[in-house]
Amino acid sequence: MQAFQDFYPENVAHCYGCGRLNADGHQIKTFWDGDETVTRFQPKPEHTAIPGFVYGGLLASLIDCHCTGTAAAAMYRAENRAMDSLPAFRFVTGSLQVSYLKPTPLGPQLEIRGRVKEIKGRKVVVEATLYAEGVATARGEVVALQMPDSFTA
Amino acid sequence: MQAFQDFYPENVAHCYGCGRLNADGHQIKTFWDGDETVTRFQPKPEHTAIPGFVYGGLLASLIDCHCTGTAAAAMYRAENRAMDSLPAFRFVTGSLQVSYLKPTPLGPQLEIRGRVKEIKGRKVVVEATLYAEGVATARGEVVALQMPDSFTA
Repeated sequence: MQAFQDFYPENVAHCYGCGRLNADGHQIKTFWDGDETVTRFQPKPEHTAIPGFVYGGLLASLIDCHCTGTAAAAMYRAENRAMDSLPAFRFVTGSLQVSYLKPTPLGPQLEIRGRVKEIKGRKVVVEATLYAEGVATARGEVVALQMPDSFTA
Repeated sequence: MQAFQDFYPENVAHCYGCGRLNADGHQIKTFWDGDETVTRFQPKPEHTAIPGFVYGGLLASLIDCHCTGTAAAAMYRAENRAMDSLPAFRFVTGSLQVSYLKPTPLGPQLEIRGRVKEIKGRKVVVEATLYAEGVATARGEVVALQMPDSFTA
C-alpha cells in the first residue's frame, strides 16, 4: 500500500521529515485508517531527550509532517480524487502547537493518529495524538496551508 | 565563553537538540545578550523542507531547546546564582507553539533570539524569534517546566 508521501511530486519530496527522496531524513509514511490517519515511527537511540525518553523536537517534527500529509490526503478526499491525480496537493505548516502530556519512552515504536478538524479554502487544520505503547504522550495541532507557488518558483 | 548548555549536569546532557554529549545531535549553544538570549545555528543541506528552504521541524526543535536553555539561565539569574552552582536547573517542554511567518532560506546561519515572558514557580514562559539574514521567519513560545525528579529516577 502506498503512503500519502509516496504521491508527493518529485520536486517537493525532499522534506527531512517526510520526503521519500531525503536519504538522511525520517521518511515517515502516513495512511488512512477510516476517518483517521496513522503514522508509525521508530525513533533511533540518538533521538534522546533526557536519557530513556524521546526528544521532544522529534515528536514535534513527526506531528508536523503527519499533519501536512493528512492535509493533502484530506483535500484529495474532499474532491473525491485519487492521490495520483492532478493537480497535486502539497501543504506547508502555518503554525504548529504541541503539548507534551508525559515523557515518551525511547524504545517502542510510536504511533501518531490524526484527524481533520477543518478544511477552509487553502487551509486545513489537523489535530494529532502521539502514542507510545498505547499511552497518549503528546498532542498537537497544525494549521496546514496549501503550498504557495513561490516555494517552487 | 561557556554556553548555557555547557552547564547541564552530565546525566541530562544527551538531548538531541542541545546536549553536548549527544554526538549525533544539534548541540546548540545559547548565550545571554543583555536581557535576550541568542543561539546561532547552521542547518545542514539535508535539513530541507521544500528544496531551498529549511525544514520546519528543525526550526521547531531549535526554538524548543533554545527556550528550555533560556528558562534554566533565567532561573539562575532570578536567584542571582552562577550557572555552575547547585542545585542545577534543567527544564523540559510543557508546550511548544511555532508560527511560520515566511519560508526560511537554507544556506545562511540562523539566529534565534529569546526573551523571558514569565517566571512562576517551576514554570518559565519564553518567547523566541528566528531570523535568517536579519529577517524574522518564525516565532515561537515555549512553556518550560523544571524537570521532575521522576525523569532521572
